[in-house]
Amino acid sequence: MEGTILVVNCGSSSLKVALFDPQLKKLTSGLAERLGKGDAFASLKGSSGPIELASKANHEDAFRALVSALQDQGLLDEAPVAIGHRVVHGGETFREAALINNDVLSAIRDCAGLAPLHNPVNLLGINATKALFPDTPQVAVFDTAFHQTLPEAAYLYALPLEFYWDWGVRRYGFHGTSHQFMAHEAARLLEKTPATTSIISAHLGNGCSITAIRDGRSVDTSMGLTPLEGLVMGTRSGDVDPGLVDFLATKGMSAEEVNRVLNNESGLLGLSGQTNDMRSLTELADHGHEPSQTAIDVFCFRLARYIGAMMASLKHLDALVFTGGIGENSSRVRKKVVKHLGLFGFSIDNELNNHHGGISKAHIEGADSRFRILVIPTNEELVIAREALAAARPGTAG
Amino acid sequence: MEGTILVVNCGSSSLKVALFDPQLKKLTSGLAERLGKGDAFASLKGSSGPIELASKANHEDAFRALVSALQDQGLLDEAPVAIGHRVVHGGETFREAALINNDVLSAIRDCAGLAPLHNPVNLLGINATKALFPDTPQVAVFDTAFHQTLPEAAYLYALPLEFYWDWGVRRYGFHGTSHQFMAHEAARLLEKTPATTSIISAHLGNGCSITAIRDGRSVDTSMGLTPLEGLVMGTRSGDVDPGLVDFLATKGMSAEEVNRVLNNESGLLGLSGQTNDMRSLTELADHGHEPSQTAIDVFCFRLARYIGAMMASLKHLDALVFTGGIGENSSRVRKKVVKHLGLFGFSIDNELNNHHGGISKAHIEGADSRFRILVIPTNEELVIAREALAAARPGTAG
Repeated sequence: MEGTILVVNCGSSSLKVALFDPQLKKLTSGLAERLGKGDAFASLKGSSGPIELASKANHEDAFRALVSALQDQGLLDEAPVAIGHRVVHGGETFREAALINNDVLSAIRDCAGLAPLHNPVNLLGINATKALFPDTPQVAVFDTAFHQTLPEAAYLYALPLEFYWDWGVRRYGFHGTSHQFMAHEAARLLEKTPATTSIISAHLGNGCSITAIRDGRSVDTSMGLTPLEGLVMGTRSGDVDPGLVDFLATKGMSAEEVNRVLNNESGLLGLSGQTNDMRSLTELADHGHEPSQTAIDVFCFRLARYIGAMMASLKHLDALVFTGGIGENSSRVRKKVVKHLGLFGFSIDNELNNHHGGISKAHIEGADSRFRILVIPTNEELVIAREALAAARPGTAG
Repeated sequence: MEGTILVVNCGSSSLKVALFDPQLKKLTSGLAERLGKGDAFASLKGSSGPIELASKANHEDAFRALVSALQDQGLLDEAPVAIGHRVVHGGETFREAALINNDVLSAIRDCAGLAPLHNPVNLLGINATKALFPDTPQVAVFDTAFHQTLPEAAYLYALPLEFYWDWGVRRYGFHGTSHQFMAHEAARLLEKTPATTSIISAHLGNGCSITAIRDGRSVDTSMGLTPLEGLVMGTRSGDVDPGLVDFLATKGMSAEEVNRVLNNESGLLGLSGQTNDMRSLTELADHGHEPSQTAIDVFCFRLARYIGAMMASLKHLDALVFTGGIGENSSRVRKKVVKHLGLFGFSIDNELNNHHGGISKAHIEGADSRFRILVIPTNEELVIAREALAAARPGTAG
């Protein structure tokens, strides 16, 4: 097909691609996992079986294999018109998507100190696609860019100012493409313009973050210098007492060990001792497994606490929006969270909450709710494709 | 005088005493500083000059000197009927004040792992007073006790549950005596009973914390495992990204160094680079010193964020209460904080805010405010004296 847009999202050992037609309709998507670890495998949606891949395949091998599978399906008989890359950290350099050139590449490299696990693999992805499509415009779309509008009082930690000036220690925020998409979708559903729409966007996936969006701009968010701060997540702790590291040192734990536990063994998994998956937790809780119920309770309470916190950045509120795997699928979480929000004037309609897809057109608030409550499926790939297309077209690039 | 109550508050190098008459009217107070550091000095309110004290005096020396000065003034011609000690950490053992015996002493020692800088000096104070008044009932009043009513969802961090079971890692909360006093005072001012009064209490001194009090009981609070979590404070950072320690390690800072900076060189002092004193910051800001203005802005924004967060734990709200040095004296901070709270329905009356002492009888809310706003001077010594008296009287001890 002519005029396609390819979206690439590289993780440390994974690679996801999605292909869009010129009208931004998704054609298909593919996935490779366990790259560089042995046992690598790849698959394309709609294919009968897995894609042939050497077990030691790296990111570039996987990209070649996925592209060749796309070509076999007749979806990519010519080079795409734009390739959009998810890049995790754009520091203070990138306030929007950027057409990749040498300066942009070196700026992404400069931000790697802020996201040592992410930016280097994002660069791997960019190199892999450049090798195969040297003439296609490549666009970097940053997780942090949407939050560059945070006011100073929201992005500064109460640390010695030199930490910010010398090392860039500040709140950056992440999940920017998802929150930005929520702002646009909510405006559309409410028949308003994004520039006059204010929402609180709760992105609840395996990573979770919440953002206050005032007249279309991010003004506060829960993730910070890193994606570890804020809400309780699948395996991440979110907020803890900053004195925790020092306390755990008295128990013989090193700072590195603590960091590993906070990132990989905490959150829903840590509290339940069982799983980071909300659906499984719900089932476990229904069967009387108390730690699973506790994990859900803490998750919902902390989210409610943050919804209140975000309201301090808004003058009016058009809607509270739930998205992400948990936000879209767990009616129980939504109900439990809104139950904490009575003093703010939120109420939920149980019927709409249980069947929000069809009858409600996304709305799940109760008739007496002071604010609207929406459930909107996120689509970060679409945002990246859209931004890539815009930035790749000369004259419209940001 | 007969029937006096003595209140003792030991810091690592300081000792404060306050003497109350049987009707809980404060007679006088005294202070010793730089104990064990050389240059120790002590003074008593109403005395013409400093109290004689060896420069290498320790806590017991200072206590003896202060008691002898009280005797010289004719205020302590017989032993007090009760001595109340501020003890920082009561862990999960103490839900209220405790008459000190060997079991209590050993339980306070057991909690020292949770407050290694505080509980050992509190024990020093208890020993010093026992040496001088062996027959007077001594009562421990804990900073943490009032918060033992927090629900599980509010006190658990999203960490592996073993951290809580094995090591007691959880939110404890501090400033309990002050928050408890606010709950009582607010109820009195509002002509309600504490058991039906719900407030948000913002204690803003050199340490700062905020508590949601529902029907007289603490249900959420900003300080956590240690007094470092939560609001921006004089020299403490309050909340930071839990990934900060790991990030600063890449800059060559050890976890210990980070902990020292977070406790002693952050907060208002860190942001302004000048001072941890709100009055001085206000003056500096008025003279165009931008970092001082920034420090005030971050302080107020973060407080507003927490007021929103606390509302998630309440079904109704009788009043937002400001107390502590900053809370009682800075009309500018109060005004700036409430300005962030418009969406919640708070408004402030500028005239009342500027002159809350006389005309307003503590109220500073605007006529159209959805919630009341009060300024109430805190009096932790009075609470300790009251609790000491109650616990020391046989038959009324808790």
